[in-house]
Amino acid sequence: MNIIDIIEKKRDGYHLDEAEIDYFIKGYLGDEIADYQISALLMAIVLQGMDERETALLTKAMMNSGAIIDLSAIAGIKCDKHSTGGVGDKVSLVLAPLLTSAGVKVAKMSGRGLGHTGGTLDKLEAIPNFNINLSTTEFINQVNEIGIAIIGQTTNLVPADKKLYALRDVTGTVQSIPLIASSIMSKKLASGSDAILLDVKVGDGAFMKDLHSATILAQTMVNIGKQLNKDIKAVITDMNQPLGYSIGNNLEVIEAIATLHGQGPKDLEEICLSLGSLMLVQAQKASNTKEAYDILKTNLTNESAFLKFIELVAAQNGDTSYLTNPDKFAKANNIKPIYSKNEGYLKEINALKMGHLSLELGAGRKTKEDQIDYSAGIVLTKKIGNYVRKNEIIAYLHSNKTITEAHCLMMDEGLIYQDESIAQVELIKKII
Amino acid sequence: MNIIDIIEKKRDGYHLDEAEIDYFIKGYLGDEIADYQISALLMAIVLQGMDERETALLTKAMMNSGAIIDLSAIAGIKCDKHSTGGVGDKVSLVLAPLLTSAGVKVAKMSGRGLGHTGGTLDKLEAIPNFNINLSTTEFINQVNEIGIAIIGQTTNLVPADKKLYALRDVTGTVQSIPLIASSIMSKKLASGSDAILLDVKVGDGAFMKDLHSATILAQTMVNIGKQLNKDIKAVITDMNQPLGYSIGNNLEVIEAIATLHGQGPKDLEEICLSLGSLMLVQAQKASNTKEAYDILKTNLTNESAFLKFIELVAAQNGDTSYLTNPDKFAKANNIKPIYSKNEGYLKEINALKMGHLSLELGAGRKTKEDQIDYSAGIVLTKKIGNYVRKNEIIAYLHSNKTITEAHCLMMDEGLIYQDESIAQVELIKKII
Repeated sequence: MNIIDIIEKKRDGYHLDEAEIDYFIKGYLGDEIADYQISALLMAIVLQGMDERETALLTKAMMNSGAIIDLSAIAGIKCDKHSTGGVGDKVSLVLAPLLTSAGVKVAKMSGRGLGHTGGTLDKLEAIPNFNINLSTTEFINQVNEIGIAIIGQTTNLVPADKKLYALRDVTGTVQSIPLIASSIMSKKLASGSDAILLDVKVGDGAFMKDLHSATILAQTMVNIGKQLNKDIKAVITDMNQPLGYSIGNNLEVIEAIATLHGQGPKDLEEICLSLGSLMLVQAQKASNTKEAYDILKTNLTNESAFLKFIELVAAQNGDTSYLTNPDKFAKANNIKPIYSKNEGYLKEINALKMGHLSLELGAGRKTKEDQIDYSAGIVLTKKIGNYVRKNEIIAYLHSNKTITEAHCLMMDEGLIYQDESIAQVELIKKII
Repeated sequence: MNIIDIIEKKRDGYHLDEAEIDYFIKGYLGDEIADYQISALLMAIVLQGMDERETALLTKAMMNSGAIIDLSAIAGIKCDKHSTGGVGDKVSLVLAPLLTSAGVKVAKMSGRGLGHTGGTLDKLEAIPNFNINLSTTEFINQVNEIGIAIIGQTTNLVPADKKLYALRDVTGTVQSIPLIASSIMSKKLASGSDAILLDVKVGDGAFMKDLHSATILAQTMVNIGKQLNKDIKAVITDMNQPLGYSIGNNLEVIEAIATLHGQGPKDLEEICLSLGSLMLVQAQKASNTKEAYDILKTNLTNESAFLKFIELVAAQNGDTSYLTNPDKFAKANNIKPIYSKNEGYLKEINALKMGHLSLELGAGRKTKEDQIDYSAGIVLTKKIGNYVRKNEIIAYLHSNKTITEAHCLMMDEGLIYQDESIAQVELIKKII
């Protein structure tokens, strides 16, 4: 086999077979195939595409490039959820203990945030002493003991994806449904869960800007599951405004805690219950989503979800006093209210702009090496559709840096008002 | 400016502007842009194309990447011809002195052969002591003195093309009209001629397999000339069978000498006269191709073209006794007649297969480092359309290696016979 033949085959629009896909993944990881050959192949894939079978084979080859977590020592159906990344997306913090409170085994590997989107690991680490580094044995034991564990991805998981992603990042080959889908799915499948629910975010603040491309990505990932005999479902959810009211690590944990008490923002609670209902059925703990919804709703109001969260944090060495007394979370030195310059119905609270502002305030990382300011972020007081009077407070900016006019201007630029009232935002766009 | 933006722009089907094209050529040559980024860009160019303007700008940027030969010290219109490469293509050996005999200044830089196609330099070096390495001053002086000089490309001509071609060769990005056209034209334009005739070969033995793609390549190169204000014409000629009867360096020189005496194969003479007529008009030494044709035809029969060839070879230190007595050319140790296994009209003498056989016999190079056996090659006795009886000699194989059954089989595989007679092969397919 010869890499040039493989490049030319894809360049000319033909399908690659399993041996060819395995060859280039193994050859690249083993430094037998040069970067400049793989980047030419990646560009050919971007422009000529890959069909369902090729995409599944690529996912499998990447998955097999490193360790695969074996969760068979945990009885029952192990569930995982993956979000393609949003602003104010603290769903996992609520959903994972909520599901476990209803009997689902959650053995979850999460990621860090980069750019304008946050990551579950960073939010968990906002809880003092929370330990995300468990060995595989500790991880499995904890799930067997309390039903839940959330850790960082082990370093030897899907090394091919790490190497390919670094190359894609500098060769204009990021934007490709088969490459994005196989990157996500290889990591999810290698981390060993039986059933996976994908939360594909769509809108200004998401990687996928429109429903059409989000649908294709979701469908592609579900198809990978079909081809590889895994139970994969996908939900496309709105990311045109931040989820809930809070953006930033401490602020989002506080909002998650409120939601686990049944007192969270309506949109956040709704998305947790909707995704959770689907997963409860996938885990065979409910026979339909209506029944599942009722179970989960109950567990948000009777504190059992919150207590499971306490158990999780305690098991991973986190300081649970922060959960029972969220006022303990450090506040930023500077908290600045933002007053509305206009009057009208809020038509847009641009999620991407809010994500960038939050990043500027210190809540995220521009590069992997950046330090996070856990107390930084934004607390909105309004959602799309709310009526806002002039000079009313619409948000608070939190930062340990000086909050400048430029920051306030970024906030204003993210808001659009209109005179007419606005129809309800549809949170769940599609289930695939 | 940023190479990733340029890659993404081309990936998404937009046109690159002059600054962007200059940036990536200069950056690549200066090792500021990585191989893996250029190969991704090349694949995007292969699949998204380049329009006339982009192709001309790429040609110009490559041309300006190294030295540009200044031929202004030579009075009058300097002419050059370029062939895209064929089997048995000894046209330059005949055409260059023929044109000079009619008053045209020929300052020609030629290349070596690689793979199944031969190169003019190798054929000239088959003449003992012929010196292809003149300095630019010697080159110009010789054209001023005797009207003609043929040398190898100086090393500092179009370094960007050398670097890009090496990368294209290993990344499946050779097959692209704008990349092929700009590669050819940058070298031709950098070598300083005023008027260029392109001989685009089409058929089994050529780089372009069909008339459609040959026409696009020819048109693209003519358009580059238009955009850059150079007089470029193109002729598409047949390469479905070898040109003339001889393939291999000594054998082709001998055939060229016969042609310069007016006693060459009909197809070879015809193509030399047709291309020459167009160039004589380009050089303003004839007012139309009919008049030009008559002048050239006369010069083939009255020995003036042959005498000019003697002058050329003498000026470049070659042993002219080989021209006046072609029997002096070394013969291969083994010369094996091939007998026809079939009977009928020759429908095909596959040029590609003949080229590969000639290569196997030692006449060419598989890699740049290979040594040529000047005496090796093939002498056909038939052309397409000839009637062949069974067991009639159809060719002689010449080699200093042992000629094996495999070689004879390759010969047989290149021939197709049919019962019906065949229409004349159209040698000149198109003039653009």
